[in-house]
Amino acid sequence: MTKTFTIKRRVQFAETDMAGLLHFANYYRIMEEVEHSFWRSVGRSVMTEHDGAEIGWPRVKTGCEYFAPAHFEDELDLVLTVADVTDKSVSYEIEFRRGEQRLAIGRTTAVCCTFENGKMKAVSIPEFLRTPLEEMAQSRKP
Amino acid sequence: MTKTFTIKRRVQFAETDMAGLLHFANYYRIMEEVEHSFWRSVGRSVMTEHDGAEIGWPRVKTGCEYFAPAHFEDELDLVLTVADVTDKSVSYEIEFRRGEQRLAIGRTTAVCCTFENGKMKAVSIPEFLRTPLEEMAQSRKP
Amino acid sequence: MTKTFTIKRRVQFAETDMAGLLHFANYYRIMEEVEHSFWRSVGRSVMTEHDGAEIGWPRVKTGCEYFAPAHFEDELDLVLTVADVTDKSVSYEIEFRRGEQRLAIGRTTAVCCTFENGKMKAVSIPEFLRTPLEEMAQSRKP
Amino acid sequence: MTKTFTIKRRVQFAETDMAGLLHFANYYRIMEEVEHSFWRSVGRSVMTEHDGAEIGWPRVKTGCEYFAPAHFEDELDLVLTVADVTDKSVSYEIEFRRGEQRLAIGRTTAVCCTFENGKMKAVSIPEFLRTPLEEMAQSRKP
Repeated sequence: MTKTFTIKRRVQFAETDMAGLLHFANYYRIMEEVEHSFWRSVGRSVMTEHDGAEIGWPRVKTGCEYFAPAHFEDELDLVLTVADVTDKSVSYEIEFRRGEQRLAIGRTTAVCCTFENGKMKAVSIPEFLRTPLEEMAQSRKP
Repeated sequence: MTKTFTIKRRVQFAETDMAGLLHFANYYRIMEEVEHSFWRSVGRSVMTEHDGAEIGWPRVKTGCEYFAPAHFEDELDLVLTVADVTDKSVSYEIEFRRGEQRLAIGRTTAVCCTFENGKMKAVSIPEFLRTPLEEMAQSRKP
Repeated sequence: MTKTFTIKRRVQFAETDMAGLLHFANYYRIMEEVEHSFWRSVGRSVMTEHDGAEIGWPRVKTGCEYFAPAHFEDELDLVLTVADVTDKSVSYEIEFRRGEQRLAIGRTTAVCCTFENGKMKAVSIPEFLRTPLEEMAQSRKP
Repeated sequence: MTKTFTIKRRVQFAETDMAGLLHFANYYRIMEEVEHSFWRSVGRSVMTEHDGAEIGWPRVKTGCEYFAPAHFEDELDLVLTVADVTDKSVSYEIEFRRGEQRLAIGRTTAVCCTFENGKMKAVSIPEFLRTPLEEMAQSRKP
C-alpha cells in the first residue's frame, strides 16, 4: 500500500487573483509547505546542519497539472508521496484534493545540496535524511 | 527563424529565500509577467472583454526546469516563444537567461475561457487573440 | 478583560528572504489570515453576500512595528483584538508572539464596502457583521 | 525643493486578489522595490559588504494609507523621498501615483544592521551609505 503524508491547508485571500481563483503559482508554494511538514513529521527540517555544512534541497524540476480551480477558503487536502529517491535527489508528488475531488497534481524533483560560502554543491543524501524518504518510496513499489 | 518576445526583469529582494536564491515558485510569477507583457505588446490584455463576456486564460499545465540559480538584483532576460496553439489553448515556453547563461526554462499551457457569474467555460480562441499567437507560433515551424 | 482571537501559524520557507528572516511584507499577509480566521470562527467570511451585493473590507490604513525577527519554522501565536468599530469601519490589532516574546504588532483599518459592477462603495456595517465585531471591541473598554 | 527618486512599475496579475484590486500587502513589496532601485541609482545595493560584514536594513516600522485602489496593468509612479536619517536608521516615504491621482502613501523605517553568524546588530550608518541618504534628506528641510 502506498504511504502518504497529508495536511489540510486553507486557501487564503492573498493567494487568490482577480479571476477569483487560487493563483496557479501559489500551488508551488503550497506544494513546498507539505514537503516541509513531512520533514517536520519525521523530526527533520528541509534546512538542516550536517557535518558542519548547511544542507538544503534546491529544485531542478517542478510541474503542476490543474484539473479544477480552487477558491478562497477552500480547505484542501494535500497528499504527498515520494515518487523516487536517487543518490542525490528526491521526487515528490503532491495531490491537491477538495473532499473527493482531485483539483491538481504537482511534481517536484529536488537535489540534496550543501551551502558553503554562498556555493551550492550536490551531495549524496546523508543516511539520516535518506531513511525517511526511502521508507515512503518503498511503499509505492509493487 | 523563431520569433521571440523578450523583456528584462530584475530579481527582487522579496523574491529571494533564506537560501539566498530566487525562490522556485517565483519563476512562475515571472513567467506570467512576460506572457502579459507580450499581450500588451500586441495591444491586448490577458484579461479582456469579448461579446459581453470576460475572457481569461486559466492554466492547465505548468512546469519549469532549473539549471542554475538566480540571485537578488540579477537582471534576467525572459524570452517567450509560442510553442503551440490549438482551438482553445496556447502553450508558451519561457527561457530565463542571465547574459549568455540559460538559468531555467518554463512551460505553460493555458486555456481560453469565458468567466460569467463565477463560472469558467473553455471556448475557441477568438480571432483577435488567435492572430498574434499564430504569428508567433508559425515562426517555430520548419 | 480583553477578548482575543488567537491562531497558531508557522513561518514558511517561501516567506523568508535572503537575510534569513520572515520578510516584512509577509507580516501583512499573516495579519490578514488571522482576521479571516476570526470571521470564520463566528460563522462568517470576509467576503460575503448581503442584500444581493458582495461585501468586502478594503483597507484604508495598515501598519506594523517589528521588535524582533521571526525565522523559518517558527510557530507564531497571532493574537487579534478589535480596537475600534465605527459606522463603516473596523480597526484590528494583531500581536505576533513566539512563546513569551512579542515579535511585532500590526494594525489594520478596513472599511465595509459593497462591490457592484466593479465599483466599491463604503456602507454602514450590516448588523450580522457588526455584532461579532462589537462583542470583541466591548471587551477592551475599561 | 524636495529631491525625489521615481520609478514606474506596472501592477501584475499575481498581485491582484479576488476583489479585483492590488492586494494591500503587495504595496509593501512595491515600496521595497523603489527603495532598492534608489540604492542602485547611487551605485549601491541594499545588501552590501563593509569591513568584512554583510550590511542590511531590517525594518522596525512600516505603514501605508490607501486612498484609491489600484488595478491590474495600472502603471504606477512610485515616488520615494527620504524623510529622516538618524545615526542608525533611515525613514522613507513612498507615494503611489497613477497619473495625477495619489493612490497611497507608504512609510518605512529601516535600521542599518550587520549580519554575522546569523546575528543582526544595529550599527551607525557607514559614510558611503549615509552620504546619498543625507543628500536626499537635506532637500526636504525648509
